[in-house]
Amino acid sequence: MSTEIKAYGASDKAADLEPMTIKRREVGPKDVKIEITYCGVCHSDIHQVRNDWKNSVYPVVPGHEIIGHVVAVGENVKKFKEGQLVGVGCMVDSCRECSSCKDDLEQYCENGMVPTYNGKDKHLGGHTFGGYSEMVVVDQDFVLTIPENLDQKAVAPLLCAGITTFSPLNHWGVKEGDKVGIIGLGGLGHMGIKFANAMGAHVVMITTSPDKAKDAKRLGAHEVLISKDEEAMKEHTGSFDFLLNTVPVGHDINPYINLLKRDATMVLVGAIEPLDAVHGGGLVMGRKRVAGSLIGGIAETQEMLDFCGEHNIVSDVEMINMDNINEAYDRVTSSDVKYRFVIDMNSLKN
Amino acid sequence: MSTEIKAYGASDKAADLEPMTIKRREVGPKDVKIEITYCGVCHSDIHQVRNDWKNSVYPVVPGHEIIGHVVAVGENVKKFKEGQLVGVGCMVDSCRECSSCKDDLEQYCENGMVPTYNGKDKHLGGHTFGGYSEMVVVDQDFVLTIPENLDQKAVAPLLCAGITTFSPLNHWGVKEGDKVGIIGLGGLGHMGIKFANAMGAHVVMITTSPDKAKDAKRLGAHEVLISKDEEAMKEHTGSFDFLLNTVPVGHDINPYINLLKRDATMVLVGAIEPLDAVHGGGLVMGRKRVAGSLIGGIAETQEMLDFCGEHNIVSDVEMINMDNINEAYDRVTSSDVKYRFVIDMNSLKN
Repeated sequence: MSTEIKAYGASDKAADLEPMTIKRREVGPKDVKIEITYCGVCHSDIHQVRNDWKNSVYPVVPGHEIIGHVVAVGENVKKFKEGQLVGVGCMVDSCRECSSCKDDLEQYCENGMVPTYNGKDKHLGGHTFGGYSEMVVVDQDFVLTIPENLDQKAVAPLLCAGITTFSPLNHWGVKEGDKVGIIGLGGLGHMGIKFANAMGAHVVMITTSPDKAKDAKRLGAHEVLISKDEEAMKEHTGSFDFLLNTVPVGHDINPYINLLKRDATMVLVGAIEPLDAVHGGGLVMGRKRVAGSLIGGIAETQEMLDFCGEHNIVSDVEMINMDNINEAYDRVTSSDVKYRFVIDMNSLKN
Repeated sequence: MSTEIKAYGASDKAADLEPMTIKRREVGPKDVKIEITYCGVCHSDIHQVRNDWKNSVYPVVPGHEIIGHVVAVGENVKKFKEGQLVGVGCMVDSCRECSSCKDDLEQYCENGMVPTYNGKDKHLGGHTFGGYSEMVVVDQDFVLTIPENLDQKAVAPLLCAGITTFSPLNHWGVKEGDKVGIIGLGGLGHMGIKFANAMGAHVVMITTSPDKAKDAKRLGAHEVLISKDEEAMKEHTGSFDFLLNTVPVGHDINPYINLLKRDATMVLVGAIEPLDAVHGGGLVMGRKRVAGSLIGGIAETQEMLDFCGEHNIVSDVEMINMDNINEAYDRVTSSDVKYRFVIDMNSLKN
């Protein structure tokens, strides 16, 4: 049993996104049916649409920064009720049985979590479809509560860009007084600045572009370090307690390793591709660490949203209508957005 | 004031090691004078003699795995007495004031620790000379107590190869039941196996050479994983709690990252040069960590020696006379030693 609904997607990797019809399952006993009001545009939407990671299944209906209202709930759903404002992020299911799932880290599910789009659909067969659509039906365990005091349009990007940057800052214990560097000022980096600032850190925006300095300070950075300025980089050598590297492509991380204090960690969240050659000596001298981090588990995503409610943190967004999506993709690709596009999903209905 | 003593060193990077005379300082109030009985041959001795790291100062008198007897102590020395068996490792001094020194991590001294050879000699000027010599005078804070139950010849390599492998296993908390991989079976790797086994881990020797399997098991490995065997590598994917990578040259670490469990760490201790390109996705998927580690602090080196005394751990050594050193270097370079050469320093006197 399923319902046909309106969506927007790409039929192959060369295609622009265009209107299409997809199926959603009926509401099961543990399901929440959500009418989507807003959906953020993540860089990985573009990678998937263009098959950059060689795992896309067409048609691709992207979107994993979903905000909406509950319109129906299954008979066993206790946590949510009709009318409530909720969110859905990058996952809609996982095995629930492996050690990662039991540790509330469904994003590392050893049997493979189910991505919100382009994942394997256990209910209808085929693959999952994302938030560039009217409506979605999701298991209650993968639905998040949105603090009512926040602007819901600007909350959407928290479901991916937010948790991707909050989780490593939280997991590696960034605290008041730490000197924290956020490398790269885009959709991820701008959230990293806001979170690190709210956690009480001394926040340094590290960027190649001097023209980003003013905006970085508006977002909460206390200092800006231009990574091309060798003298400035030398002054900051060995001084950082933590580095969050949001650069979305392979690059040379050695100059950033030099910035770490002894025993400090740089976490990569953007570059899921080969990096330039790392010099082993840079890690050995100072017992430094490079790690990776992938979004966050459902419990930590809720913790992040509650933290945002408490500290009044949202994303800086630019609103678009559904039919502006192809132009928006071009602008994301050329880093021409401050800092996240959000689609007004009402525009799909017309 | 200084004394002339016999030593063995290289006068330039193209030269063989040969007999030479060097100066040692007189015994100061806090100094310990040690008559050297045995000195281990470390691969980094060869790197320094050949100026591979571009920081050698000639003549180079190598040797930082020093065992000997105390023959005199300064008036303020309380910890050591004449006749006592002692050791000296890779460092003979540090600033004592920086945060690393205060944390008992002199190897990361922010003002630069003084290496046992090829370091800056604060007392006589010029540079320090190592253990390929009759005698050495060292500040008591950098002298170690050797458990009397151990074979002193085979203790020498503990001062570098021992602490280099013990420290990361200890620092990252390897414990009973952990699945630990030791990558590379040489001077470092063979100590890694012994320590990980003594800590109660399930030890897997990971090597490119099937012919090393038998010896790895003799040393304490429970399993051997041949890294060129793709099927075997696949079976071990995501299963290791900790990896100690002792490979002494740049190499491809991506297949080893795949072996780590979620949140697990691989520590590099050998490759202080550029590695092949690391794939960011390998770290991101599973929140994995790659770190470095350099020898160990003096307190931890003593802890390691005491651990060896308790568990009856020494290095597997092949004894040589001082005038065999050039041949020994060639054999180390071609990995033809099980597993560490130790020089009988009595052979220098004749």
